[in-house]
Amino acid sequence: MKKNNSYLLDLIKSQKDNFSLDQSFYTNKSIFEMDLKTFFFNQWVFVGHISRIKNKGDYFLFSIGEESIIIIRENEDKINAFYNVCRHRGSHICLEEEGRVRKFVCPYHAWNYDLSGKLLKARMMDDNFKPKNWSLKKCNCIVFEGLIFINLSENASDFQNFINPIEDFIKLHGLGKAKIAARKIYPTKGNWKLTLDNFHECYHCQPSHPEYCHVHSKDYIQAYGAGSNTGPESKEFNKKLETWNKKVKKMGYLTGEFSEKKFSKFFRSAERTPFSNGKLSETKSGKPASILMGDFNEFDGGYTTIGPSPFNSIIMTNDFATLFTFIPKSPTETEVELMWLVNERAVEGIDYDINEITWMWDETTKADKRIIENNQKGVLSSKYEPGPLSKMEIGLDKLKKWYLKHLELKITK
Amino acid sequence: MKKNNSYLLDLIKSQKDNFSLDQSFYTNKSIFEMDLKTFFFNQWVFVGHISRIKNKGDYFLFSIGEESIIIIRENEDKINAFYNVCRHRGSHICLEEEGRVRKFVCPYHAWNYDLSGKLLKARMMDDNFKPKNWSLKKCNCIVFEGLIFINLSENASDFQNFINPIEDFIKLHGLGKAKIAARKIYPTKGNWKLTLDNFHECYHCQPSHPEYCHVHSKDYIQAYGAGSNTGPESKEFNKKLETWNKKVKKMGYLTGEFSEKKFSKFFRSAERTPFSNGKLSETKSGKPASILMGDFNEFDGGYTTIGPSPFNSIIMTNDFATLFTFIPKSPTETEVELMWLVNERAVEGIDYDINEITWMWDETTKADKRIIENNQKGVLSSKYEPGPLSKMEIGLDKLKKWYLKHLELKITK
Amino acid sequence: MKKNNSYLLDLIKSQKDNFSLDQSFYTNKSIFEMDLKTFFFNQWVFVGHISRIKNKGDYFLFSIGEESIIIIRENEDKINAFYNVCRHRGSHICLEEEGRVRKFVCPYHAWNYDLSGKLLKARMMDDNFKPKNWSLKKCNCIVFEGLIFINLSENASDFQNFINPIEDFIKLHGLGKAKIAARKIYPTKGNWKLTLDNFHECYHCQPSHPEYCHVHSKDYIQAYGAGSNTGPESKEFNKKLETWNKKVKKMGYLTGEFSEKKFSKFFRSAERTPFSNGKLSETKSGKPASILMGDFNEFDGGYTTIGPSPFNSIIMTNDFATLFTFIPKSPTETEVELMWLVNERAVEGIDYDINEITWMWDETTKADKRIIENNQKGVLSSKYEPGPLSKMEIGLDKLKKWYLKHLELKITK
Repeated sequence: MKKNNSYLLDLIKSQKDNFSLDQSFYTNKSIFEMDLKTFFFNQWVFVGHISRIKNKGDYFLFSIGEESIIIIRENEDKINAFYNVCRHRGSHICLEEEGRVRKFVCPYHAWNYDLSGKLLKARMMDDNFKPKNWSLKKCNCIVFEGLIFINLSENASDFQNFINPIEDFIKLHGLGKAKIAARKIYPTKGNWKLTLDNFHECYHCQPSHPEYCHVHSKDYIQAYGAGSNTGPESKEFNKKLETWNKKVKKMGYLTGEFSEKKFSKFFRSAERTPFSNGKLSETKSGKPASILMGDFNEFDGGYTTIGPSPFNSIIMTNDFATLFTFIPKSPTETEVELMWLVNERAVEGIDYDINEITWMWDETTKADKRIIENNQKGVLSSKYEPGPLSKMEIGLDKLKKWYLKHLELKITK
Repeated sequence: MKKNNSYLLDLIKSQKDNFSLDQSFYTNKSIFEMDLKTFFFNQWVFVGHISRIKNKGDYFLFSIGEESIIIIRENEDKINAFYNVCRHRGSHICLEEEGRVRKFVCPYHAWNYDLSGKLLKARMMDDNFKPKNWSLKKCNCIVFEGLIFINLSENASDFQNFINPIEDFIKLHGLGKAKIAARKIYPTKGNWKLTLDNFHECYHCQPSHPEYCHVHSKDYIQAYGAGSNTGPESKEFNKKLETWNKKVKKMGYLTGEFSEKKFSKFFRSAERTPFSNGKLSETKSGKPASILMGDFNEFDGGYTTIGPSPFNSIIMTNDFATLFTFIPKSPTETEVELMWLVNERAVEGIDYDINEITWMWDETTKADKRIIENNQKGVLSSKYEPGPLSKMEIGLDKLKKWYLKHLELKITK
Repeated sequence: MKKNNSYLLDLIKSQKDNFSLDQSFYTNKSIFEMDLKTFFFNQWVFVGHISRIKNKGDYFLFSIGEESIIIIRENEDKINAFYNVCRHRGSHICLEEEGRVRKFVCPYHAWNYDLSGKLLKARMMDDNFKPKNWSLKKCNCIVFEGLIFINLSENASDFQNFINPIEDFIKLHGLGKAKIAARKIYPTKGNWKLTLDNFHECYHCQPSHPEYCHVHSKDYIQAYGAGSNTGPESKEFNKKLETWNKKVKKMGYLTGEFSEKKFSKFFRSAERTPFSNGKLSETKSGKPASILMGDFNEFDGGYTTIGPSPFNSIIMTNDFATLFTFIPKSPTETEVELMWLVNERAVEGIDYDINEITWMWDETTKADKRIIENNQKGVLSSKYEPGPLSKMEIGLDKLKKWYLKHLELKITK
């Protein structure tokens, strides 16, 4: 083991249960670089939805670290992800954030690739040059229920294995028959773990998120605000949940939840929970915001929350979905991307109003951006030391343990 | 001793008397970090005046490096300094540059602290959680004659011991009964030592500071421009000083000077000197700029200059005071903060005109900013080498020796 | 050999013929710093033209890395280059990008130097201070045919030796009797070697430079676009060249070419080639753009291309000259400076139109800036790997080999 790694291993072992992490996990450049390789580059992460690239040749770019990935529709059935690097001298090939092409033409020397990444034409090469050896480099890419997942690992874990326990929760909502109603990026000056710490506890919801607290009930927030078993049990909410489960089973829809039972590469969760007070959707009024999606024929008063990995979250009512992607940018910068999906048949202005759909999570994410940035500033102080966690920060502590264990495995293997 | 330190020790020993320092002292990042710890974090430095926080709960923030310090009035008699870091997960607590609070409420999870820093309330904590263990971290803070001094060391030197030799010089001017007339910050792209080099010699005054030379006489500038014994003796000025000392003693006011006689932690100086040509204050006209302060019942034609540490300077006429704080920001950036104080009973527009009071040092500090920035640019050249100092740069050489000796002690202890 | 150097040596040896370089040559900070010392600081590079400083005391500044060089006219016959660093405490002396001075007066303490760099006056120095020991530090500087060449090495190679093989090609055009018609800087976010790679091949001309392809013929571009022997031979062009050579010899003007025959410190080239289709100048219309220069009494339909070093290029028609300087700024930044010269007797608006003269290379350089920046972005990807070069990239491969060989010598000597 390298000397640095031995130092890091000691640091990992010295982290205390139910306390936040030491400063260097939130600030250190080499830990950040190890983080990228160990976590983001090893997970299946969705980075978009098929409705963003409906036609053959439609593409968009996804950036992480120094990598630019082209996500492109090859044909009606196939979406590919390529590294945006010409095999000749390395130029970026696609220059716009999104667009449509018939084939890839490198803007430097006009090397041509088809939409499957195959090199079609390169002028003036030696006679022994074999175009078939110079295809664009592919990135693992799988579309599941309209969500475009990529995995930057050379040894990506099996997708079916990954998606299996959360599959039914996603399928219920028919995201494959959805379209993007809105998309927004929140650049946040905070380490990605401070950004996720924030997302994995609802201890701050009451002081910081009036919009969230308007929509959700106090007992839900306490017990389920950051997912099942992330806060103290609420008997009141358990009763509501039990009643609702029975009702929904009768209606024929999925209920229940999934959480990781043992340590693995994955950090997934999923659950279905009821709204309170007769609310039907995650809106200011509690009234529906759009037409029903997926399997739903009527509103079941419930809410589905799915965490496929630490870098994504899916939050779905019966009539729309809010999708989160958390993209680490530097030791102290993270980009948070939100997409709101509605039924592909819904008509803007008639079936839904974008402001109504985006209101809660837009306000909440703007507040979180501010909160996380102030958190980062304080964590940079020499006087910062890990503090004790509350009973409502169990989710954050779980994530932290999973993170530390993986980092330990990475440096000891 | 670490290898780096052994290299640094050789470098320290190779510095020549009466020459400027080698390049790396003005540019190197690790020397800068050692500088912060060895000097700024170990000195009593004033960072404000009580009139900025008159009422209970009034606060302002002071920033140095990654540290944000809350300077707050707890009550009529007490001012505290706290690290702006919540003990829970480290968020900044106060977000505005200045303001007023009844208690501290962390904007993240609403942990509450009183104005003495004691944790009052933290929701949902474990039963064995003891709030008394989680007070805000304090920074040493002492108010002397209205000046708010802080010391970031864990082993701060005794304040009385520190202030003793310069105490009477400060007291004479009644700064405890003063108010801030103006405050201004001059961000300067130069190493803190280039900024102080500039402040500790008046060799550049004649070519660069017409305003300063308009106010002060040639013989004063030569002998005392950067303090007593920082330039060649001027018999003419000595005569003036002698005459003035006699006159002022008769009037019953303090005269004389203090300078460090042997090497110590401190780098202090103080002196009282006469204006020339019947001038009474440090103004364009030489006429008074405001009502008298402190012990003065009439203008004594004199001027008090005090250097409590390298990071502060106090320059006082009978009717106003100019306070300097030099804050290192990065290897090539320093913030210079100026505050002008007048008698707390003085009325703006009637008793004083802000432009008249700030004129000389505002113009002079703007010129110094420009000078220092050009100095830094040249010092970055591979062809820069320390040059010989003139007879008017004795003050700068003294400061340099004190600096080198401390750095040597730091790395050899 | 240091460990880092041994690593670098292995890297150098692993580079493949006819492929682009590995990523770190285009991105690594320590390779960049070694590059500066090994290449730019060791070459004769022209940085301006005498017409920019016509009168005694006229100067301009040239910046590279942390160095600022003053290029100043001492008298009618002499131009000097000094490091812009006062010998006293290191301040920059000249602060404007260009101007005129009677002598150098340091803006800090008014040390005075004459235009030969000799210290004239320094106030208040010790009695044993000897001004003659404190002249400004000189940089090697030679004016040749109006071009101001500097060399930052302490052991500059002999200038005559350097200029000898390209001397006649330059002299033909009378640059000593020229003036600057236009000057423009193109800051380019790409490593200097990516910038030069781009300049040393014309494989990208057809897809990227419509203006260049409008002016120059396809057969010229293929065989000579990046200089003689940088692309596949064109029999058609050879025939044209042969015919033109005969015609021009009869007219009494120089023809032919020079290229390095064996490895040396220098990387020079020069050649004279014909325009096609009766064109006379490098303009949109092919018609002359100004009055004749140098030895020309009539248009000979030809074009002179000279590469004195990798950091300069001179491209000349009979009536104007385009001069290039490539200035490395950081691992991923290069400044490209273009100057257009015309006969000193030419009158703007009557004899020439600036837009006509600058059109081709201004458009082409703007396109190259964009191309190089996209190239740099892709090269930063972890998936970038050196790709195979085409038959039109021989010039770039030559430059690469010369570069690698020099770097190897540097670290093994």
